[in-house]
Amino acid sequence: MPVDIASRKNELVREYLRLSGSAPYRREQEKFAAEGARLCADAAESGLTALSLFVTEEALGKYDRYLRTIRSSSPAEYLISQSVAQCLSDTKNPQGVFCVFAMPKKSTAMPYPPRGGHLLMLESMQDPANLGAVLRTAEAIGIGGVFLTGNCCDAFSPKVLRTSMGAVFRLPIFRCGNAPETVERLNAAGLTTLAAVPDKSALPVTSLDFSHPTAAVIGNEGNGLTEETKKACTMRVTIPMKGRAESLNAAASAAILMWEMMRGNEGSDRS
Amino acid sequence: MPVDIASRKNELVREYLRLSGSAPYRREQEKFAAEGARLCADAAESGLTALSLFVTEEALGKYDRYLRTIRSSSPAEYLISQSVAQCLSDTKNPQGVFCVFAMPKKSTAMPYPPRGGHLLMLESMQDPANLGAVLRTAEAIGIGGVFLTGNCCDAFSPKVLRTSMGAVFRLPIFRCGNAPETVERLNAAGLTTLAAVPDKSALPVTSLDFSHPTAAVIGNEGNGLTEETKKACTMRVTIPMKGRAESLNAAASAAILMWEMMRGNEGSDRS
Repeated sequence: MPVDIASRKNELVREYLRLSGSAPYRREQEKFAAEGARLCADAAESGLTALSLFVTEEALGKYDRYLRTIRSSSPAEYLISQSVAQCLSDTKNPQGVFCVFAMPKKSTAMPYPPRGGHLLMLESMQDPANLGAVLRTAEAIGIGGVFLTGNCCDAFSPKVLRTSMGAVFRLPIFRCGNAPETVERLNAAGLTTLAAVPDKSALPVTSLDFSHPTAAVIGNEGNGLTEETKKACTMRVTIPMKGRAESLNAAASAAILMWEMMRGNEGSDRS
Repeated sequence: MPVDIASRKNELVREYLRLSGSAPYRREQEKFAAEGARLCADAAESGLTALSLFVTEEALGKYDRYLRTIRSSSPAEYLISQSVAQCLSDTKNPQGVFCVFAMPKKSTAMPYPPRGGHLLMLESMQDPANLGAVLRTAEAIGIGGVFLTGNCCDAFSPKVLRTSMGAVFRLPIFRCGNAPETVERLNAAGLTTLAAVPDKSALPVTSLDFSHPTAAVIGNEGNGLTEETKKACTMRVTIPMKGRAESLNAAASAAILMWEMMRGNEGSDRS
C-alpha cells in the first residue's frame, strides 16, 4: 500500500510536532496532538472531534477496533511510514496511531459541584506525570472539576494525556492564571476552600465535615502553596502523618485529600 | 586539587556502575550505589554504612553539610573529575556526590506489627517510580513493613531510591519470592490479609475494622493480583469509585488503602 506521508518534513508532520511540543501553540490553535490507539479512541469516545488521523500500515491491522472509534468524527486520514511514526512518537516503540484533536470547548461559567460533589484546585503543579496521576485519581474518585492555576503544566501535553489515562478528556478542567483570585471566586461561589499544608497546627482532614461543597487547594511539589493563596482559603488542612514531616508526595497528598472529601460525603451515591 | 579518579575505566567506577545497573549483582555483593548529596546523607543518617564516597571538587564546597553526615561511617573518599561524575550519574546535571553503601542487614523474622501497626505486601509491582512512590507514602503514613513478592522491581535500584526519598532506608522491607506463600505466612502470623481488587463485589475498604493487625496485598500495575494470591488472602477488598472502573493507578490505590488502614486505627498515636 503506498503511504501518504513518507517524509519527516511534511507540513502535517511538522504541525503535529508543534502541537505536541508547545502549550502556547496548542492554545493558539485550539488543537492538541495525541498518540496511541487507546488514548485517541478514548478522546473520540469522550466526545472530542478528531481532525486528523495518522496511522501506519502495521497499526491498521492491529488496532482496528480503536480506529473505528476514532473515525466516528470523520478525521482526515493519512497512511504514514514507520520512519514518520518514529518521528511523531514520544516513545521508543510507537503503536503507529496519532491524532490531532480540537480542544474541548471552554466553559467560562464557574462549575458549581452537584450535590455530593467537590472540586480540586492546583497551584503551580509542575511535573506532568504528577498532574496526569492527580487527574486520573480525581476522575476515579468522582471530583466534579479541576482548576489549574499559577504555573501549572499544561493538561494537554503528551505526558499528562498519557499518565491521566484520558481523564483529561472527561474531567471539567479550567485553566485560570491567578491562584488567590481563583480561590476568591470559589469562595464567592459558596464553596469552602481548603489550603493543604504540611503543618501540624492545621486542621486534620479527618476532622472535617464534607457535607458542604468544598474545593481542596494543593500547591507546588517543592514549595507548596504561596502565602497569598493560603490566606485566601477558608481554612488550612493537613494530612496527619506518622512518618517524617512533608514526606507525602504531591500526587499521594492529592489522592488522600480527594478521597477524604468524597469518603466523608454521605450524600454521594458511591456504590 | 588533583583528582583521584579521572578515568571512566577506573575499577571503582566500573564497580559503581555495575551496582547501579544490576539487581542480582547488588544482592550478590550486598552493596548498592546511591547518587545525590541528600539521598546519600539520608542513608547515612538512617544508620547505613557508606563504604565509599565519590565527590567532585565543585560538590565539596556546595554540599558540605551533607558530606559531613555521609563521612560519619568513614567511607573511603575519592575526588572525581566532572567527566567521571557524568558517567556515574543517572541524571543530566549530576550534583557530583555518589556513594556505595552496604545493604541493610536482613532480618529473617516475620515482623509482627506493633499495636496499631499494619503491613503492606506487593506482588510484581514493576515500575520503579510506582514502587518508590508507594514506599514513600508507606513511610509517611506509618506502615510497619513492606513485603516485595513475585517479580517486584528491586527496591535498591537508582530510580526507586530517588523516588522513595530515602524511605527505602528506613522502612523494614522484605524480599520474598512467592506471593501466595508469603500471604500464608502472614495469615499464620495472625494477620488479616486483604487482597485489593477492582471489583464491586468485594468488600468496600470503608466498611472494614482495622483494629486488628492487617496486611494490604496489592498487585501488578496492569494485571493486579494473581488468582493464587487472591485465594490465599483472608478477604477481597475494593476502593469504591465513582469514575470509570479500574481507573485508579497502582500508587494511588496503595495510598488510599494504606491511608484507610491507618485512618481507621483508633489505637494509633497519630497527632
